Amino acid sequence: MSDENAILAPNVAFYHAFASGDYDAMDAVWARRHPVACLHPGWGPVAGRDEVMKTWRAILANPGGTPVECIAPQVFPLGETAFVVCHEQLPQGTLIATNLFALEDGVWRMVHHQAGPGPAVSPARGKPVQAPGTRTLQ
Amino acid sequence: MSDENAILAPNVAFYHAFASGDYDAMDAVWARRHPVACLHPGWGPVAGRDEVMKTWRAILANPGGTPVECIAPQVFPLGETAFVVCHEQLPQGTLIATNLFALEDGVWRMVHHQAGPGPAVSPARGKPVQAPGTRTLQ
Repeated sequence: MSDENAILAPNVAFYHAFASGDYDAMDAVWARRHPVACLHPGWGPVAGRDEVMKTWRAILANPGGTPVECIAPQVFPLGETAFVVCHEQLPQGTLIATNLFALEDGVWRMVHHQAGPGPAVSPARGKPVQAPGTRTLQ
Repeated sequence: MSDENAILAPNVAFYHAFASGDYDAMDAVWARRHPVACLHPGWGPVAGRDEVMKTWRAILANPGGTPVECIAPQVFPLGETAFVVCHEQLPQGTLIATNLFALEDGVWRMVHHQAGPGPAVSPARGKPVQAPGTRTLQ
């Protein structure tokens, strides 16, 4: 497995756990010893494994799971850590996300996730279909 | 300087460059060799140093700078990389951000930035003043 695929594997596992509402699978994705945090859309920061997993337990309790799809993931390797940037397609709209992973005993584990509103994407190409504004026009 | 302060220093430099509209200072903050990316609020993903710096050149051309303030930064060290979670107070509202740094030749450099809408914060305590919703109610 290439480095990129090795890093994409836990990213796939994250979205599979999210979509299927599988708390145990989500628990397995997150790091045990590294410090972790999560920025859910519209929430304040959540820090520490216990607090982060509490939020996922609440989110994954949504009956029937959450129909979330990861679109156009891009991997940025940094040695013992790596981040993935992708879109998240949800029924309510499109988010844009950062997923940060770090090696623990040779296994890539998630240490941070941020998702927030992003431009709509073309499913065929995974590219934004809206022109970006400037940072000052947010 | 403690590890935490060593990681906070480039975070301070990033917001100083941003607020003062100083392109050269912003250029100095970003990594030279590591892969980099940036998720500006409402934009699609920007990847690669040249592309990321083009966006900052456009943003920092805003006459008079951008009155942005970093509130309540929290540091999460991961060895040769580290991430900072903070709020960004702007005239238009409050954002929540992830800033990712990695060591290059012993110097902490920014490799990724994501900012998106966040809950309002109390300036006195740096805590969100709105209760979070659930992930499914974004």
